Amino acid sequence: MIPEPIKKFINAFSSLPSIGPRQATRLAFHITNLGKSQIHDLAKSIADLQQLKTCPDCFFTNNGNCLVCSNASRIKNVVCVVEKETDLISIEKAKKYNGIYLVLGELNKTGSFSPDQKLKLKCLKARAPLEEIILAINPTAYGDLNAALILQEIKPFAQKITRLGRGIPTGGEIEFADSDTLASAIDNRG
Amino acid sequence: MIPEPIKKFINAFSSLPSIGPRQATRLAFHITNLGKSQIHDLAKSIADLQQLKTCPDCFFTNNGNCLVCSNASRIKNVVCVVEKETDLISIEKAKKYNGIYLVLGELNKTGSFSPDQKLKLKCLKARAPLEEIILAINPTAYGDLNAALILQEIKPFAQKITRLGRGIPTGGEIEFADSDTLASAIDNRG
Repeated sequence: MIPEPIKKFINAFSSLPSIGPRQATRLAFHITNLGKSQIHDLAKSIADLQQLKTCPDCFFTNNGNCLVCSNASRIKNVVCVVEKETDLISIEKAKKYNGIYLVLGELNKTGSFSPDQKLKLKCLKARAPLEEIILAINPTAYGDLNAALILQEIKPFAQKITRLGRGIPTGGEIEFADSDTLASAIDNRG
Repeated sequence: MIPEPIKKFINAFSSLPSIGPRQATRLAFHITNLGKSQIHDLAKSIADLQQLKTCPDCFFTNNGNCLVCSNASRIKNVVCVVEKETDLISIEKAKKYNGIYLVLGELNKTGSFSPDQKLKLKCLKARAPLEEIILAINPTAYGDLNAALILQEIKPFAQKITRLGRGIPTGGEIEFADSDTLASAIDNRG
């Protein structure tokens, strides 16, 4: 009943994170009903991602030249470890950080590193001695576990190892903050 | 900070329904980190949708030959009007319907038809006299409004115009059914 190209699209796209078979099916028919040139543009915007490279130092995606690592004004002995490229982008948007990064890839929940992540941590160690390593890992239970594991690995390679400050987010309400967050907010008051 | 091909991907994909800029950004980096052949396959699965055609009779998507309309065993004077291709697929999965379809496209909430939908309704009228037209429009407030509008348009063109039966869905619980649904279930008991 479902034409073959639609089936293939559903298979391909429902394998992506956060897209299930239902959303993929709706997308398939929606895209089919667009004009040929719009379909072509969508296909091209995916194919063009093949051009992108990964920085051999920070492992962020780039278009030939890492915009962070190649920037002479950035401090090279302070490294911020993030899981995802989108975490890096959020930190950059805050316009507060002037060091470099290490994009480690999403950490799993079993408390172990993938071979790829082990290699990346090795690259980080090779940059020692570092002034500071910031572990910008989510302040969740698993994030705390993983940050502790990374800390063990990299402790001898930097003078100081920190994590992002915890407290009440701007726009948040004290009444609804959990006890852990409030305790952190009192510690970090100023 | 964000490489150009990623920006283009985010623009193209966040224009699709149910994909926002955040999901598009995550997808962009996820796809970038896949191998070149996987990226190529994804792009191809979109480009291949260009091959698909729309049946001039029922307006369902097909690969050269409408699988419903070209099926000689299907009754041609019973037409089921659906909004979306995915509605048609769900009805086909129920294996209970042996007529043909009209895929009308998503109805808007202002109680008017698009030029495209007016044209499709004209095609439906051209098939008169019909034995039955089933308005398989969602049983929501807007769906009821739109079904009433379609009914006005097509009333003279079929002996009988029906909608899908309402009642308690299989697996549902009487305790939690709303009064409208229960009233329909009592009417449709049997």
